Amino acid sequence: MVILGIDPGTAVTGYGVVRTVNNAMSWMDAGVIVTDTSMPLCRRLLLIYDGIREKIAEYNPQRVSVEEAFYGKNVHTTLVLGHARGVAMLAAAQHGCEVSEYSPREIKKSVTGNGNATKEQVEYMVKMLLRSPVEKMRQDAYDALAVAVCDFYNMGRAALINKK
Amino acid sequence: MVILGIDPGTAVTGYGVVRTVNNAMSWMDAGVIVTDTSMPLCRRLLLIYDGIREKIAEYNPQRVSVEEAFYGKNVHTTLVLGHARGVAMLAAAQHGCEVSEYSPREIKKSVTGNGNATKEQVEYMVKMLLRSPVEKMRQDAYDALAVAVCDFYNMGRAALINKK
Repeated sequence: MVILGIDPGTAVTGYGVVRTVNNAMSWMDAGVIVTDTSMPLCRRLLLIYDGIREKIAEYNPQRVSVEEAFYGKNVHTTLVLGHARGVAMLAAAQHGCEVSEYSPREIKKSVTGNGNATKEQVEYMVKMLLRSPVEKMRQDAYDALAVAVCDFYNMGRAALINKK
Repeated sequence: MVILGIDPGTAVTGYGVVRTVNNAMSWMDAGVIVTDTSMPLCRRLLLIYDGIREKIAEYNPQRVSVEEAFYGKNVHTTLVLGHARGVAMLAAAQHGCEVSEYSPREIKKSVTGNGNATKEQVEYMVKMLLRSPVEKMRQDAYDALAVAVCDFYNMGRAALINKK
């Protein structure tokens, strides 16, 4: 199974593609879609949408998981983030696959065992779990891989519960 | 010229299509895209996006104007609204036309002369200005027509300023 994780943002959207075979996970691809902050919002949304559509076409994921927004700090930022999440979720819905959402806390907890883990801890664990390439990627790419890992673990738990 | 006004919302998205010839405006179409609140968010975004794409294909607008979100009340509601706005703006950007955004206050001020006008005043003025059909439409459809009217007036002002 292929899982695409997305960490949406209008300035930087991270994506991470993970392949799972039975209980094993491996890294397939990860990166970021960066948009110029001086561009009109609608053009930036188009870039994010096209970027995600491209990755979906390339890897044909069976599942797409999206990080939930962390809101509460700034209402305007939250609203703009909503736009980026909206087009990311639209791209997933058009592909017809399963779409899941996880909070930052759930993601950190899944990947490191601690819901309050630092960005560095998340990055470290993602590298360990996925044997991702050694060259340094942008934080948003690790975050997106973490979303995909969280989805995989969550599926595993759901299967375990159904078995009982 | 054809202007499509959009009042985005995840539950109800209003759209209004206005034709302008010189300084005259007339009603072409208006209505709402309603999504079932029990559906997953990504399916609802797909319905909103497809609905707007359909109207764009039908009327081929030269301009699309979108109501800005009124934020400050509830951060979660604002975030979800951002998703609906995002897919609406994406549909407009894909069409390649001019996309404008107006605050609720600007829209009310344009249509009624009062930035604090009631919904009923906006509806009354939209009916008067556009000679829209007598049968009652949903409020969101009138609001969307008001966005298009606001855009038309705004263009007029911009042209006037450029002439000076």
